[in-house]
Amino acid sequence: MTGLTVAVVGATGAVGREMWRLLPDSAVPVERVLAYTGTRSAGTELIFRDHPVRARALDEASIEPVDLALFSAGADAARAWAPRFAALGATVVDNSSGFRADLRVPLIVPEVNGELLDRRVAIVANPNCSTIQMVVALAPLHRAWGLRGIKVATYQSVSGAGARAMTELVENTRRHLAGDEETLQVFPHPIAFNVLPHIGDFDPAGESREEGKMREETRRLLGLPDLPVSATCVRVPVLRGHSEAVWASFATSPDPDGARELLRGAGVMVEDDPRAAVYPLARRASGRPEVFVGRIRPDGSDPRGLALWVVSDNLLKGAATNAVQIAEVLAARGFLGRSGP
Amino acid sequence: MTGLTVAVVGATGAVGREMWRLLPDSAVPVERVLAYTGTRSAGTELIFRDHPVRARALDEASIEPVDLALFSAGADAARAWAPRFAALGATVVDNSSGFRADLRVPLIVPEVNGELLDRRVAIVANPNCSTIQMVVALAPLHRAWGLRGIKVATYQSVSGAGARAMTELVENTRRHLAGDEETLQVFPHPIAFNVLPHIGDFDPAGESREEGKMREETRRLLGLPDLPVSATCVRVPVLRGHSEAVWASFATSPDPDGARELLRGAGVMVEDDPRAAVYPLARRASGRPEVFVGRIRPDGSDPRGLALWVVSDNLLKGAATNAVQIAEVLAARGFLGRSGP
Repeated sequence: MTGLTVAVVGATGAVGREMWRLLPDSAVPVERVLAYTGTRSAGTELIFRDHPVRARALDEASIEPVDLALFSAGADAARAWAPRFAALGATVVDNSSGFRADLRVPLIVPEVNGELLDRRVAIVANPNCSTIQMVVALAPLHRAWGLRGIKVATYQSVSGAGARAMTELVENTRRHLAGDEETLQVFPHPIAFNVLPHIGDFDPAGESREEGKMREETRRLLGLPDLPVSATCVRVPVLRGHSEAVWASFATSPDPDGARELLRGAGVMVEDDPRAAVYPLARRASGRPEVFVGRIRPDGSDPRGLALWVVSDNLLKGAATNAVQIAEVLAARGFLGRSGP
Repeated sequence: MTGLTVAVVGATGAVGREMWRLLPDSAVPVERVLAYTGTRSAGTELIFRDHPVRARALDEASIEPVDLALFSAGADAARAWAPRFAALGATVVDNSSGFRADLRVPLIVPEVNGELLDRRVAIVANPNCSTIQMVVALAPLHRAWGLRGIKVATYQSVSGAGARAMTELVENTRRHLAGDEETLQVFPHPIAFNVLPHIGDFDPAGESREEGKMREETRRLLGLPDLPVSATCVRVPVLRGHSEAVWASFATSPDPDGARELLRGAGVMVEDDPRAAVYPLARRASGRPEVFVGRIRPDGSDPRGLALWVVSDNLLKGAATNAVQIAEVLAARGFLGRSGP
């Protein structure tokens, strides 16, 4: 395969920056790279393999044929522009929720259901960050014991709401410590020294969008369309790294030691020696591409249940890393490149 | 009843300070008040009804007969000294875990099982903070629908680990923002911009002490010795106010509207209009004596389940307020005072 032309759409956002940073060392054979941003960030100079690349505003004039477009620009931009890139021959990997509910668009976590990438496709959807890390942890256990239900409470970092949310946490933390008034731009309430059980809009029954995504996307990724899943999604004053308290119930009795072995065998990082204060931590997972699992123990309220603590960097495996891994699978299978097979 | 002599033991700690502050406006008829502290804080001048009170180090020489002793000095101090105060005629209300597992000692949340305070007792145990707020929220629902199981993930503020833990969070937050190295004295890992799934020591199966307390104390308070309860207890970078994601399963189908009505009728503060961004928040609950419940919705994974979000000030209803309320019940029933009935 010859080198590919790759566009990163939303290149200056929290996730886009990570996609940009990951590409040079990935197995995607990048020859040329384009950066697209919103109008405010257009003109920003990015560096790719020591060469400057000027970010373009995404519009009719700037769009051009590429082999691969990595999108992290929100659902509206994805719905508007991903089909345009696809029409010019690109494969689009989109990190937004824009196509995740579209059953014609594969929703992929490579180590969970990568086998579905068995042909050229126009668009591949990257799942929700909270869902990816939970499914990476549960898929190996599901294969062994048959998943029957999930309850999950999340501790999600503010970077999941974008770069501006990170600034808001830092600035308002400073203000709160100084006794100054905090200003709210991204979050509906102060996030400094607080937790907010509110991620995305609410439906009439009181479930948030994030909670609905965790159910629907988990069902799709595991191929279990009726799996009972109940999530409570909560924003915590952490910059990077989502943590999750998960209860998983199975068809046959699971055991903690077996779970650790299955997870290690699947490439999951098991950090589980709580008496030595060893368990996954958001700050330590930050900047790392893996999913970390610990606090694996029997669910005292369910003889077929396990409790787990799952942590990952939401900007990496929860977003940029998973998107680049999808592109790597497509490249390895010869499904990328306008002149490919 | 004539005025009582009341001792606050641990008077300069995070909870002791709140007990001290609450006493003058309580229904406990306080005539004289004594402050006991550890040796480091002895000599501190506290103010009670505009009069200075000098804190004494708790030792053989300083102990004297009182009518009521409010203890918040840890389990070791409680086990050592509460029986001594009791032997001199006091009723002790102890906020530590020192006596909670002792079935001869009543474990009380007044609005849940206050009827057990039906006689003079030497020692009454105040439950664990996380347990109190959850049980206040679940007891009215249990009476209506019959509780069958609980799963709970907590978001616990650092004040639950004492005043030094609050200082550690503030100082290390400042250091982290300044790029300086953080120092650890209370927590085993950095708590600034992080979450730690570690509250209390771990048993061989990997359950923390706090998680075990939530099960054992909930069972005792609700009189359900076999109730399945599974907790994951997590410290979050919040100064004051514990939040909890609770799933409760019942014998008969619950409904969210009925739950709101039952809770309001029981004096619980229902804040539940998520589409208007109204739900309980740790920072807003801080300094208030009530338990706040919101995000009440069907548990999508259990037809007989409800999901709830429960928040309260862990230093108040979770500790000092509940202890003072126990004393108020004892006073109203004539069970306080060395010369009483």
